[in-house]
Amino acid sequence: MGLIVQKFGGTSVKDAERIFNVARIVTETYSAGNNVVVVVSAQGDTTDDLIAKANEINPNASKREMDVLLSTGEQISISLLAMAIEKLGFPVVSLTGWQAGFVTNSTYGNARIRRIESERLHVELDKRNIVIVAGFQGLNRYDDITTLGRGGSDTSAVALAAELHADLCQIYTDVDGVYTADPRIVKNAVKLDEISFDEMLELATLGAQVLHNRSVEMAKKYNVNLEVLSSLERKPGTKVKEAVKMEKMLIKGVACDDDVARIAVMGVPDKPGIAFKVFSLLAKEKVNVDIILQSIGRDGTKDISFTVPLSQKETALTVLNENKEAINSHSIEYDDNVAKISIVGAGMQSNSGVAAKMFEALYEAGINIRMISTSEIKISVLIDKEKAEKALIVVHDAFDFNA
Amino acid sequence: MGLIVQKFGGTSVKDAERIFNVARIVTETYSAGNNVVVVVSAQGDTTDDLIAKANEINPNASKREMDVLLSTGEQISISLLAMAIEKLGFPVVSLTGWQAGFVTNSTYGNARIRRIESERLHVELDKRNIVIVAGFQGLNRYDDITTLGRGGSDTSAVALAAELHADLCQIYTDVDGVYTADPRIVKNAVKLDEISFDEMLELATLGAQVLHNRSVEMAKKYNVNLEVLSSLERKPGTKVKEAVKMEKMLIKGVACDDDVARIAVMGVPDKPGIAFKVFSLLAKEKVNVDIILQSIGRDGTKDISFTVPLSQKETALTVLNENKEAINSHSIEYDDNVAKISIVGAGMQSNSGVAAKMFEALYEAGINIRMISTSEIKISVLIDKEKAEKALIVVHDAFDFNA
Repeated sequence: MGLIVQKFGGTSVKDAERIFNVARIVTETYSAGNNVVVVVSAQGDTTDDLIAKANEINPNASKREMDVLLSTGEQISISLLAMAIEKLGFPVVSLTGWQAGFVTNSTYGNARIRRIESERLHVELDKRNIVIVAGFQGLNRYDDITTLGRGGSDTSAVALAAELHADLCQIYTDVDGVYTADPRIVKNAVKLDEISFDEMLELATLGAQVLHNRSVEMAKKYNVNLEVLSSLERKPGTKVKEAVKMEKMLIKGVACDDDVARIAVMGVPDKPGIAFKVFSLLAKEKVNVDIILQSIGRDGTKDISFTVPLSQKETALTVLNENKEAINSHSIEYDDNVAKISIVGAGMQSNSGVAAKMFEALYEAGINIRMISTSEIKISVLIDKEKAEKALIVVHDAFDFNA
Repeated sequence: MGLIVQKFGGTSVKDAERIFNVARIVTETYSAGNNVVVVVSAQGDTTDDLIAKANEINPNASKREMDVLLSTGEQISISLLAMAIEKLGFPVVSLTGWQAGFVTNSTYGNARIRRIESERLHVELDKRNIVIVAGFQGLNRYDDITTLGRGGSDTSAVALAAELHADLCQIYTDVDGVYTADPRIVKNAVKLDEISFDEMLELATLGAQVLHNRSVEMAKKYNVNLEVLSSLERKPGTKVKEAVKMEKMLIKGVACDDDVARIAVMGVPDKPGIAFKVFSLLAKEKVNVDIILQSIGRDGTKDISFTVPLSQKETALTVLNENKEAINSHSIEYDDNVAKISIVGAGMQSNSGVAAKMFEALYEAGINIRMISTSEIKISVLIDKEKAEKALIVVHDAFDFNA
């Protein structure tokens, strides 16, 4: 008998019909002889509705009280799903985050899971109950309710799978797997059967919104086999696991991220220590810097440019302008009309032809490359935002994903 | 410094405006130098909405899962009220039933409070926090969420007041106190300044829906000073406490209960043991029998009639009809076109004129008395339902409540 953790997002349980659809997936898995632990999110728009209620009363409410409020969303989902499974005639029990033993730190609104005290889970599984667990929530050391922040339910599911040594952790979404590119833009994008944790991490970070990277990082750390699949179509999804064979298909996907701004610190002295000063100022403000480019010095000065998430642009500009004299810059410039196109695939570094193929495709489409960054499994280029879709298509076409 | 427990029902927190009204009452009490513990119910129609959601999925859902679902209603209220109090600039913390230490038995949907483990409450009060507690809910020995059933939030408030040795437990409702009769029917009904626990219990049982009798019983047992008052008008309400002086106003109120049916077991043998058989059959089915009347034997047979709550009429008729031969009855009859009018007041027994005055008032209004029952602090009569309002008015007029 296997143990399978299944996670269903808010759209998968948005109404009674969808809840019964989930109940059937769960009970079929159980009937096949498996123990099943199910993690659910809040129904459809519940979280937004609760936030609206809070904002009407106090837009600056404490995060502690927001977590008390928001955690009710998942508690409603678990009880409704349990009722549907009862209706189908199966033994079932719902557990809130704290009943399931989720212990977190005290960062209300964005808590990290410390451990899962799984006694209760084992008791219920030993009774052969289907166990429905509220995702996204836990309890801190003060016995106060916390929520895990964005992607929290995925993380809950992976943490449970790790703690219970589950054979598989299935993440049900409204897409049927991980694609080589966004299928809404790239018509001939191909669904991947498998992808490695590292490749998935790069894709998640780069805006392929299938899995939140916190959950992928945790799955990699505890070697939890993931599967991303659709709750509406009964067909295999994409397996996310340790890399096994990486010769055959070098490139796993092409991603586009337009939540990015380029900042340039102009005319700083061409001497040691300037870059250190710039980036330590940004680090102190918790600004995430991605691609960095430093111009070659000329006339004793150089320019340092880098990309940051769009939401951190203002923070970055403020701190740099306040310290313009300390870093000897004559001006701070920015451009948020940019997008980042990346190709992801393990073993890329050992194959220099990959980068060339990507750059050639962009050149032939007349798309100018503004910045370049590479890692072991990724090549990213910064281009003009209005050419992002075209770039995604031509780069995807340059590689043979049907091989 | 005093400790005051304040309880607010669902209509008192139904929207943002009402929540701020409650927040102002609470913070004024706190600013006057008191420690304040607040118990709130679910907002307005939340509980009904949640029940509708459940019924759509499974009308026969387990009571355990219903309690997981319904307890979210109060959890939403406590966080929203805490946010409003934060907005007014006061220190506040919300606690769910289990965080506040409510331990109950396992009768899901209608649990009884076993004890309150009040460590957390004391910690928060010692910090001079205003403490907002979710009413109506607790945790059983399996760490499962339970709800307390009807009137549960009142009971939560009284239990907290008893555990914390509060100086006063204020029950805020949409009426401004306990009246000598229902003011919607009896225009000259008078608000009482004080009433004893026993008198309040009789009134609660008889359908004066101000306080649930579970909470009054508990207040009597632990001698908790109660006050019933309006959340919308800032004026004193009615104090409910141990009887002190009872000479002055003999009668505290007149109540009408039309949730009642009369059942008659006809033509049973006039010999010992028959009444015992009838009422033990009913007791086994947990039917609550109230007024009992036994006719004088004639021709060797007699009739036994009694009243039951309307909701238990069918149960009573079924069990009696099934056992008609065992109790030697030739027919079981019933009448649900009746109502019960009661006058309540301590020390009534020692004053025979009270009953005479009540009966005279009914006689002069041409209202026939079908059954009579008396206790130390109550006289009830059964009359035709269509004369109930008139009876309430004439009986109320017969006594001088402005003395």
